[in-house]
Amino acid sequence: MAGNTFGKIFQITTWGESHGTAVGAVVDGCPPGLPLTPADIQADLDRRRPGGGPASTPRKEPDQVEILSGTFEGLTTGTPISLVIFNRDAHSKSYDHLKDIYRPGHGDITYQQKYGRRDHRGGGRASARETAARVAAGAVAGCLLTTAGVRVQAYTVELGGVAAQQRNLAEISQNALFCPDNQAAAAMVARIDEVRRNHDTLGGVVEIRVSGCPAGLGEPVFDKLDAELARAMMSIGAVKGVEIGAGFAAARLTGSENNDPITPEGFTGNNSGGILAGISNGDEIIIRVAVKPIPSIAREQQTINRQGQPVTIKVGGRHDISAIPRIIPVCEAMARLVLADHLLRQRTLGPDPKLKRAPTP
Amino acid sequence: MAGNTFGKIFQITTWGESHGTAVGAVVDGCPPGLPLTPADIQADLDRRRPGGGPASTPRKEPDQVEILSGTFEGLTTGTPISLVIFNRDAHSKSYDHLKDIYRPGHGDITYQQKYGRRDHRGGGRASARETAARVAAGAVAGCLLTTAGVRVQAYTVELGGVAAQQRNLAEISQNALFCPDNQAAAAMVARIDEVRRNHDTLGGVVEIRVSGCPAGLGEPVFDKLDAELARAMMSIGAVKGVEIGAGFAAARLTGSENNDPITPEGFTGNNSGGILAGISNGDEIIIRVAVKPIPSIAREQQTINRQGQPVTIKVGGRHDISAIPRIIPVCEAMARLVLADHLLRQRTLGPDPKLKRAPTP
Amino acid sequence: MAGNTFGKIFQITTWGESHGTAVGAVVDGCPPGLPLTPADIQADLDRRRPGGGPASTPRKEPDQVEILSGTFEGLTTGTPISLVIFNRDAHSKSYDHLKDIYRPGHGDITYQQKYGRRDHRGGGRASARETAARVAAGAVAGCLLTTAGVRVQAYTVELGGVAAQQRNLAEISQNALFCPDNQAAAAMVARIDEVRRNHDTLGGVVEIRVSGCPAGLGEPVFDKLDAELARAMMSIGAVKGVEIGAGFAAARLTGSENNDPITPEGFTGNNSGGILAGISNGDEIIIRVAVKPIPSIAREQQTINRQGQPVTIKVGGRHDISAIPRIIPVCEAMARLVLADHLLRQRTLGPDPKLKRAPTP
Amino acid sequence: MAGNTFGKIFQITTWGESHGTAVGAVVDGCPPGLPLTPADIQADLDRRRPGGGPASTPRKEPDQVEILSGTFEGLTTGTPISLVIFNRDAHSKSYDHLKDIYRPGHGDITYQQKYGRRDHRGGGRASARETAARVAAGAVAGCLLTTAGVRVQAYTVELGGVAAQQRNLAEISQNALFCPDNQAAAAMVARIDEVRRNHDTLGGVVEIRVSGCPAGLGEPVFDKLDAELARAMMSIGAVKGVEIGAGFAAARLTGSENNDPITPEGFTGNNSGGILAGISNGDEIIIRVAVKPIPSIAREQQTINRQGQPVTIKVGGRHDISAIPRIIPVCEAMARLVLADHLLRQRTLGPDPKLKRAPTP
Repeated sequence: MAGNTFGKIFQITTWGESHGTAVGAVVDGCPPGLPLTPADIQADLDRRRPGGGPASTPRKEPDQVEILSGTFEGLTTGTPISLVIFNRDAHSKSYDHLKDIYRPGHGDITYQQKYGRRDHRGGGRASARETAARVAAGAVAGCLLTTAGVRVQAYTVELGGVAAQQRNLAEISQNALFCPDNQAAAAMVARIDEVRRNHDTLGGVVEIRVSGCPAGLGEPVFDKLDAELARAMMSIGAVKGVEIGAGFAAARLTGSENNDPITPEGFTGNNSGGILAGISNGDEIIIRVAVKPIPSIAREQQTINRQGQPVTIKVGGRHDISAIPRIIPVCEAMARLVLADHLLRQRTLGPDPKLKRAPTP
Repeated sequence: MAGNTFGKIFQITTWGESHGTAVGAVVDGCPPGLPLTPADIQADLDRRRPGGGPASTPRKEPDQVEILSGTFEGLTTGTPISLVIFNRDAHSKSYDHLKDIYRPGHGDITYQQKYGRRDHRGGGRASARETAARVAAGAVAGCLLTTAGVRVQAYTVELGGVAAQQRNLAEISQNALFCPDNQAAAAMVARIDEVRRNHDTLGGVVEIRVSGCPAGLGEPVFDKLDAELARAMMSIGAVKGVEIGAGFAAARLTGSENNDPITPEGFTGNNSGGILAGISNGDEIIIRVAVKPIPSIAREQQTINRQGQPVTIKVGGRHDISAIPRIIPVCEAMARLVLADHLLRQRTLGPDPKLKRAPTP
Repeated sequence: MAGNTFGKIFQITTWGESHGTAVGAVVDGCPPGLPLTPADIQADLDRRRPGGGPASTPRKEPDQVEILSGTFEGLTTGTPISLVIFNRDAHSKSYDHLKDIYRPGHGDITYQQKYGRRDHRGGGRASARETAARVAAGAVAGCLLTTAGVRVQAYTVELGGVAAQQRNLAEISQNALFCPDNQAAAAMVARIDEVRRNHDTLGGVVEIRVSGCPAGLGEPVFDKLDAELARAMMSIGAVKGVEIGAGFAAARLTGSENNDPITPEGFTGNNSGGILAGISNGDEIIIRVAVKPIPSIAREQQTINRQGQPVTIKVGGRHDISAIPRIIPVCEAMARLVLADHLLRQRTLGPDPKLKRAPTP
Repeated sequence: MAGNTFGKIFQITTWGESHGTAVGAVVDGCPPGLPLTPADIQADLDRRRPGGGPASTPRKEPDQVEILSGTFEGLTTGTPISLVIFNRDAHSKSYDHLKDIYRPGHGDITYQQKYGRRDHRGGGRASARETAARVAAGAVAGCLLTTAGVRVQAYTVELGGVAAQQRNLAEISQNALFCPDNQAAAAMVARIDEVRRNHDTLGGVVEIRVSGCPAGLGEPVFDKLDAELARAMMSIGAVKGVEIGAGFAAARLTGSENNDPITPEGFTGNNSGGILAGISNGDEIIIRVAVKPIPSIAREQQTINRQGQPVTIKVGGRHDISAIPRIIPVCEAMARLVLADHLLRQRTLGPDPKLKRAPTP
């Protein structure tokens, strides 16, 4: 109810502040018998970790995950899995001058408006550091999905106005921005360098692709698969837009152009993005999210302090130029959490093998 | 869990099929003492009702709402409010030829995949008729929001590729497409007529604007206000994309361009769309949704039947050319449901007047 | 959240007041393909219906259930099932004199305290009439349980201080009080007649027995099967106590007396009531509930009115002498709702057939 | 959904196994501004801690709680509060011989039946050690209740068949069994000593008393205050029965005896236990729970192993003679969790000050 729990069956609750003792997640509803060790989680955390890549902050966090409960002899037991990542490189003092000032584009002012108080250090709960817990929990979801043959992959398709011209998935691992177009990736890096010199920041677009997803996932009418994916993506701090399949472009097509014809071999197009009436149709699921530029810029900005007086602010600190590519494992984690949850939901809400069944296609 | 309930405190559960006996909603969690009569709901239903406007179906449904419980002497009592709308003009037989055929772009195939059976008449539960229950429940939410000074208004900003060039809210009520640009509206009508002759259909973009929303609504980190709005909008059948504030355009701005400066008088821009870190900031909330073209087209399309054999289909029936403008009250209803829920959530999750408070801005 | 929804997967939402238009329930999460017609529900409603038996009110309600959605061609579709029972014999005027007076032992005063207003007619939402909706929904749960071989039966084991001396289940249908001891039942009827002449009312104890329940149902640590059954039973208006298996008697046993030994053929005792550590063990589940005497008595009682002034009250109206036996189908319904929900929960939370399994006993 | 979360607004999720790394709880939905330090929690944990008292195990656990998130400068921030208690004195090896044997009266067999595997060490998740997390979370709830003037106190009213003859609350702190009757407490201790020599164990009855509870808490019809309290209590491992107010005794009273008359000064009796129609009436809330004898006894018992073969077992280990008195702070914690949750629920579901109100009594 207070917003820190996600999912209905495969359910996670996250906690922790940027400069508190630790961040973590409790995963409840994971089926028993799933092989799970810290190493299964660490790989994803390492991709999200600060300290590497052309757009990244110099804050160094090992982001070492510990599993405090829910596994026994290397397998899940069906009881809640408690994951914790202790904060190591937290320089709280460097935020002292921001104690009473609201950084533009950040949640400083809205946390104060909502709660009447806030942990100002590094953004507190509103910090992107909170997503470490999501990534850890999402990795557990990923282990479950792997047993069902479902694969989630996110990659950069636009950054600072530079758009990928192709979707060559083989190239994703060949450049630092996880872009399926090496040439575009090079132009993106150039754009980042330019903007960094300018003390400014950049946004972009990430695409998430789900392959191997069985048909039938998603619960009409409010927990449709696309609705849940949209919520999941929009719950990531920097995301300001979500589209499925053709998305906003579909608004400009006619019905005859947009409909995906059906053949005995499957759909001959995928404007639907793999989801019809909120239910997966067995095709690839395609999601795109708009990522806003990071609001922390090393330039003078106009704002107010807690007393409501006008002040100017220049946010130094240790900040990324763009949430891309560190946001990529976060997008994957959120998609995995949605899919794992709906996979388990369909096991119990789908046709009961004991009950009378119509012949299926 | 099965997807027919929306909201956590102001909570609705909808039910009903297109060609069943009725559609309806149970509203639970509405505070006691709210004035509520069927007339308060009927006005919104009349705007959603089929049978009028340039893009609409000729199916005639009075869509008369009845309140079966939860009010006494014209006021809510705090107990669940049961709303029902009986179906009158249901011609089930006209769907007999579709019993075993999957219409492209519809949920026919995915309902069969998910449930192993389906009520094929008029799309069953996947029909847009289901949204009548949302609109009825949303009207109750609207009554509650009115008491708090919150106003939700949706309107057409694009249809069939024709975009509104202005946001003159006064013009919304002056044209049949509820467009804040009368001139664009005329071009949209022309586009509809052209496409209708072509036996095709159109999509577009609807913008939703919330004014008077208090700061502090939204529950980080997963029930952020923008996340919940995105889910709400994406749960509407025809919607394929959602953006908040600058949305996808924000991905192409720099941080210095995208940040909204703060002054003692308020924000001097609204790229954030009134939401920072998932919490309303007191500014207008701006949402845009991409509406796909209606998939029912009176043209031959390639598909399969339940036996998996290739067939062609031409969907006659009584269908709209575009989900716009009938989708407008549905978008409003979903926004209202989210806001009413979060208004009540903030009452209990916000600062406790009994507890020690920091001075607020 | 507002308390009118029960269950997590097999989920019901009830609505309606005693003297409103109707009472009803929406059942969400029932699997597709279950045979379901009004007749499957009506039999249980008829047992709960007022107007028969030695302890009953003369109010005549046909309690005819209608299914407004969720079935197609006699089978459930997986979409929500809307059940409605219209009120027919509501004499609201006979409650006019109670408009401003709080009947002792009733919710009149607490509804006023909680909501600041109330529908006083026949107790409004607090009326036992509300349980008609539970019984209807519970009958749907019963249909599902039947397909899984689970059977729920409740019966009277004590009334007005007269206790059954045996559990001869064959005798349950042989007396008007559904007591497994015909001789005790006769004494109970005599006690009812005596008390009726005295313008007083009686309570008793109902036992609920579940046979055929598979092992493994119940979700530790808070949604244990016994915890959920306790909540379900205690949510029935007249119930003031719940015990499982040996219950309060277990508090007086030693461990060696209370433990049920395990043999290859099963447990050799059932003090646990079929539940260990909150999980069903495959044995019969045994629950007992304490039913308080009906508070509406045709005697002068001391109370206050809404202005807080002392008044005396004599409740005439059309009232039962005891909630037993009409409460029996309500107890069965609540047990069925819990079991159906946990049956579906175990389908998704139990061991995944795809995952590595330990050999089971 | 998987059962490790409790509460709707004041919501806790617990995790951890008896012989795992730690046990803990995440508290979500606690209002901002509440003073909270580890010391506020430690006192309750110390009362639950093993290693003291006449009926206790010699396992020594410091049960030191750490707050990992959700507070800042000694006050809650409105974000989730993560509590952790590391396990120190876990002798896992002493359970090796129980790896494949099901202890009678324990969840060994049902965990295996449910999950297909289990952490057998010390009962794993089914261990009473899990309640440490409940007590920690309940202490946070207690801090919130204190600000609202609500006080929860539990005490022993029966042990091993010895019943307290009075409720002298002043005597509770004067004996090791927290019994409001020093003389009875002495007899209980004698009974414990006798049974210990006999290698057996004892049960008893705990009463929980809530004073200062405002009227209006509880959400009809399923989340009634008594229903939620019953679920809360029955979710404690050893509890087999729950009653409210007169409880099972009410079943033997007539209506005229059981009804609590109302006067301008309040109720003149409290058979209702402070709850009418599921809503608190402002009077003291009285709950009693039946606690079964501890199943771990140092005597030969008949059981089976995982292969289904008959074996005998003698449970040595480090075990209590009775769950009383260590269960007392657990009962208090569960009552506090229910009350804190309903206190917050009533803030948002009660009458809206902005809406039209009827005059209240």
